[in-house]
Amino acid sequence: MIRKLAIIGVGLIGGSMARALRDEGVVQEIVGCGRNRENLEKAVALGVIDHYSHDVAVAVRGADLVLLAVPLGAMADTLRAMKGHLAEDAVVTDAGSVKGSVVRDAVEVFGEVPPFFVPGHPIAGTERSGVEASFAELYRNRRVILTPLETTDQGALERVEWAWQKCGAVVTKMAVEHHDEVLAATSHLPHMLAFSLVDSLARMKENDEIFRYAAGGFRDFTRIASSNPVMWRDICIANQDALGGMLKRFADELHEMAAVLKAGDSEALEQIFARAKAARDRYIDRAE
Amino acid sequence: MIRKLAIIGVGLIGGSMARALRDEGVVQEIVGCGRNRENLEKAVALGVIDHYSHDVAVAVRGADLVLLAVPLGAMADTLRAMKGHLAEDAVVTDAGSVKGSVVRDAVEVFGEVPPFFVPGHPIAGTERSGVEASFAELYRNRRVILTPLETTDQGALERVEWAWQKCGAVVTKMAVEHHDEVLAATSHLPHMLAFSLVDSLARMKENDEIFRYAAGGFRDFTRIASSNPVMWRDICIANQDALGGMLKRFADELHEMAAVLKAGDSEALEQIFARAKAARDRYIDRAE
Repeated sequence: MIRKLAIIGVGLIGGSMARALRDEGVVQEIVGCGRNRENLEKAVALGVIDHYSHDVAVAVRGADLVLLAVPLGAMADTLRAMKGHLAEDAVVTDAGSVKGSVVRDAVEVFGEVPPFFVPGHPIAGTERSGVEASFAELYRNRRVILTPLETTDQGALERVEWAWQKCGAVVTKMAVEHHDEVLAATSHLPHMLAFSLVDSLARMKENDEIFRYAAGGFRDFTRIASSNPVMWRDICIANQDALGGMLKRFADELHEMAAVLKAGDSEALEQIFARAKAARDRYIDRAE
Repeated sequence: MIRKLAIIGVGLIGGSMARALRDEGVVQEIVGCGRNRENLEKAVALGVIDHYSHDVAVAVRGADLVLLAVPLGAMADTLRAMKGHLAEDAVVTDAGSVKGSVVRDAVEVFGEVPPFFVPGHPIAGTERSGVEASFAELYRNRRVILTPLETTDQGALERVEWAWQKCGAVVTKMAVEHHDEVLAATSHLPHMLAFSLVDSLARMKENDEIFRYAAGGFRDFTRIASSNPVMWRDICIANQDALGGMLKRFADELHEMAAVLKAGDSEALEQIFARAKAARDRYIDRAE
């Protein structure tokens, strides 16, 4: 049972965890925290949170579980604001898309990653945002990655794992650096490619005409380029090392592809395409 | 009215044109041509075609409209097979995704692009293929690009335009080279990127794990990597000049992105992302 859950950042991610734990009947009191009064009032009206404060120090008071669901760029300030105000038995976790930067922020604020802090990342989300978009089932059968450190308290880790499992999620653990590599490959690089491609086409002279002839495939391919630019700026900067490496490697591969194309090497091309199709079809089979 | 329509290659593209023109009541007789007997029998059973031949020369005999809906790699042989067997009033068009290569094939076979040949490209398709996937509405409100040459007969051009309009399509005309540039940008490059990315991830050591953490965005982004590898090999090779140039330029842009990332230039990054989002949202608004 959770005595008091503090959700710092009551949007899709934070709101959905609150709803899920409330529905499971495992939380007595939920306090929300954020800057936008209207959003917080809505969260109360929707029954997602019981009450709210704009002050992180006030919101975390007496909370035994704290979720940081704020943008990566606001993580350090949020940690700073709660320092010295946490309950003795408080366990803190976060939902940031990059774990290395959150760990660095924690070290900056606390001098080390505190034993009670369990870095985490729910691999879930929709194109919508804000508390109105939140729903209790968001995490059902979705993966949540926790990246505990050597200093992490075992009890704190188990507590966070338990909470996510109550939300219906499948929890796995991995090293911070490994998480950031995997996510760079499967999420951050694809976003970077989609943003870059659309921007590159938009800057072409006949861009209006170009988009006119884009068919369904283009639409799917570039859907993620409609994501929030500020959030993605933060994610890419926060994961600049892993993402930068992958970006360079991929750019080199494209130069190789250009060479294969120039040489008219249709056998090599077909091999690459066939291997990709097989991998994706396998992955989709598993996902559906 | 079309006296006899010859569909060379009775799959999604050819079958859908046959169905649409039949539904419009503007065609008296439809003959199909292909190598797969089972597929052609099915096409007859479905009423898509009236009868068929495996021999192009026989199929085009007496036809006043011929649609080449064969893979790009089979275009030259198909043109060669019909040479000397076309009716005097025959008009020929094709549905190839690249126009430069089809024009080159026509020049190779006929010494020039014959006045009766109108290169074309319907911007339509689904993930499915084969005559069973065909339907009369495929081209409704979709764009068809025709790329007539200076030598193209005006009457032939009008005839092809009329046929596509009867299918419900919006017909536009552009130069061969321009078509191939626009399609390289909006279709061929995105396919190349999706295939390359999935292949690149599949070749990583922990590829199974990587795909496990891929979420919805990745799925949309890579959907086109499930396309037919042989067809796409043909398309990419056929458009190697325009596509190769675009591929190199994009690879250079990714190197620039890596530099922006390394410098931690969040302002530049946000600008690119915001510009891309604005362009895509505009395009989607228009498409929906």
